[in-house]
Amino acid sequence: MRNIKLTIEYDGTNYVGWQRQENGISVQQELEKAINIVSGEDVILIGSGRTDSGVHAKGQVANFKTSSTIPPEKFKFALNNNLPGDIAILKSEEVSIDFHSRYDSIGKKYGYLIYNSKLPTALCRNLVYHVSYTLDYEEMKKAIDLFRGTHDFTSFMVARNDVETAVRTITNISLDKKGDLIFFSVEGDGFLYNMIRIIVGTLIDIGRGKLKAVDIPNIIHLKHRKFAGHTAPPQGLYLEKVYY
Amino acid sequence: MRNIKLTIEYDGTNYVGWQRQENGISVQQELEKAINIVSGEDVILIGSGRTDSGVHAKGQVANFKTSSTIPPEKFKFALNNNLPGDIAILKSEEVSIDFHSRYDSIGKKYGYLIYNSKLPTALCRNLVYHVSYTLDYEEMKKAIDLFRGTHDFTSFMVARNDVETAVRTITNISLDKKGDLIFFSVEGDGFLYNMIRIIVGTLIDIGRGKLKAVDIPNIIHLKHRKFAGHTAPPQGLYLEKVYY
Repeated sequence: MRNIKLTIEYDGTNYVGWQRQENGISVQQELEKAINIVSGEDVILIGSGRTDSGVHAKGQVANFKTSSTIPPEKFKFALNNNLPGDIAILKSEEVSIDFHSRYDSIGKKYGYLIYNSKLPTALCRNLVYHVSYTLDYEEMKKAIDLFRGTHDFTSFMVARNDVETAVRTITNISLDKKGDLIFFSVEGDGFLYNMIRIIVGTLIDIGRGKLKAVDIPNIIHLKHRKFAGHTAPPQGLYLEKVYY
Repeated sequence: MRNIKLTIEYDGTNYVGWQRQENGISVQQELEKAINIVSGEDVILIGSGRTDSGVHAKGQVANFKTSSTIPPEKFKFALNNNLPGDIAILKSEEVSIDFHSRYDSIGKKYGYLIYNSKLPTALCRNLVYHVSYTLDYEEMKKAIDLFRGTHDFTSFMVARNDVETAVRTITNISLDKKGDLIFFSVEGDGFLYNMIRIIVGTLIDIGRGKLKAVDIPNIIHLKHRKFAGHTAPPQGLYLEKVYY
C-alpha cells in the first residue's frame, strides 16, 4: 500500500468547492473519479482543507492510499489525461504511509487578486475581484501590518460550529500593486471560514474611505463580525501553498 | 444620427466567434442585443473583422448608428451593465458619420500566448496554447524575421472564396519569453483566414525540430498550405488593436 501526495491546480469557477456536496460537482469528486479510472480503486481523497465555490488553487494538497503499481511520479500524467481542463495535477509523489494532508499541515499561503479599474475585465472576470471605486492604496497598505501576528480573529470569520478557537497567527502579509492589479498575499498557521475574504473586503472598505487603517486593532478587539468590512467574492482568492 | 465607435474586450471561449451564425451565440449578437436594451433600436453593428470561436479580443472595434441621446462616452457603462461578463466595452466615442470599422481599418495587431510546460494550466486553459514538448526557442526566434515584409502568404492560409490576393505586409513581428510563457506578437495591413494560427503552428513545429527556420522563405515561395506547419488552436489568439 502506498500513500500518494498530489499538488493540484484548479479553476474553482464551475465547482461547488473542494468538498463533495449534494448540490453540484466538487473538485474532490472529479479527482476521485479520475483516480478510479487510472487505478481501478475507489479511494478517499483527503484534502488539506476546503475551498469555497469559485475559489481557485495553485497548490492545493491531497493524498490517497493505493495498491496500484503505477510509479508515484507518473500518476500526475495519468490523472491529467483523465481530468477536465480546469483541474491539473502539478506533482505526484510517494509520502510516508501516515502522512495526512489535513492534520499534518502546519500553515497555508493564500493570494487574492483585485482588479481596480472603472471598466470590467472580460478575459479575467473569473480570476479577479473587479473593484471600480477609486482606492486609496497607501491607506490600505498601512492596514496590512496591523493584521500580522497572533490575534483572536472572531471579527473576521463566519461562525461555524466546528471551530474551537478563533486565535490564529498571521506570519506574512503583503500588498503590492502593478498597474490596475493589486496583489494581496497572506501566510498563517490556519484560517477561519471566510477569514481572508473578510480581511480583503475590509482592506477595500479602507481603500474606499469607509474605514481607516487605524481602526483595525479596535475591530480585532471587538470580536464581532459586524465591525469588519464586507466579504470579498471568491473568484479573486487562490490557495497558493500548503506547508508541512 | 450619430455614429458610435466601440472598443471591445471579449473572452471568445463560449462564442461561435464574432459574427452571427446559425449554430450558436456570437459576440456581435450579444452586443446588438445590449444596444437594443440600452437604446431601444435595432442596429447593425459593424465589426473590424471576424474572429473565430475561442479567439479573444482586447481591442476589437465596431461601430453602429443611433438616434439615441445617450452621450457617446456613457454608452460603455450602459452597455457593460447589459452584457454578459465575458464581453466588456473599454471605450465608446462618437466618430464621423461615414466611419466604417471594416473598410477604414489600415492594419491590425494580434498577440498569441504559448504556455510551454510539461504540465497543463488549469487556471489559464482557455487563454493559452499549452505545448508540452520542449521547444528550441532560439530557433523559433530566428524564423520570426523571415516573415517580416510583403509576401504572398498562400502557404499560411485556409482558402476562402472571398480573398482576391494572398499578398499581405507584416510590419512588426516578435517573440518573447518569460518563464513558461512565450509571447508572439504580429502587426500587419491585414491577415488571411487562419494566417496567424498557421504562422504560430509553424513556429512551434520549428521549435520541435520538425521544420527549420531557414525553411521559411521556401515555404512562402511554394505557395501551398501543405508546406507550412500545423494550425495552432484559437484560445491563444488575441485581437489586440485595430489601426485607422
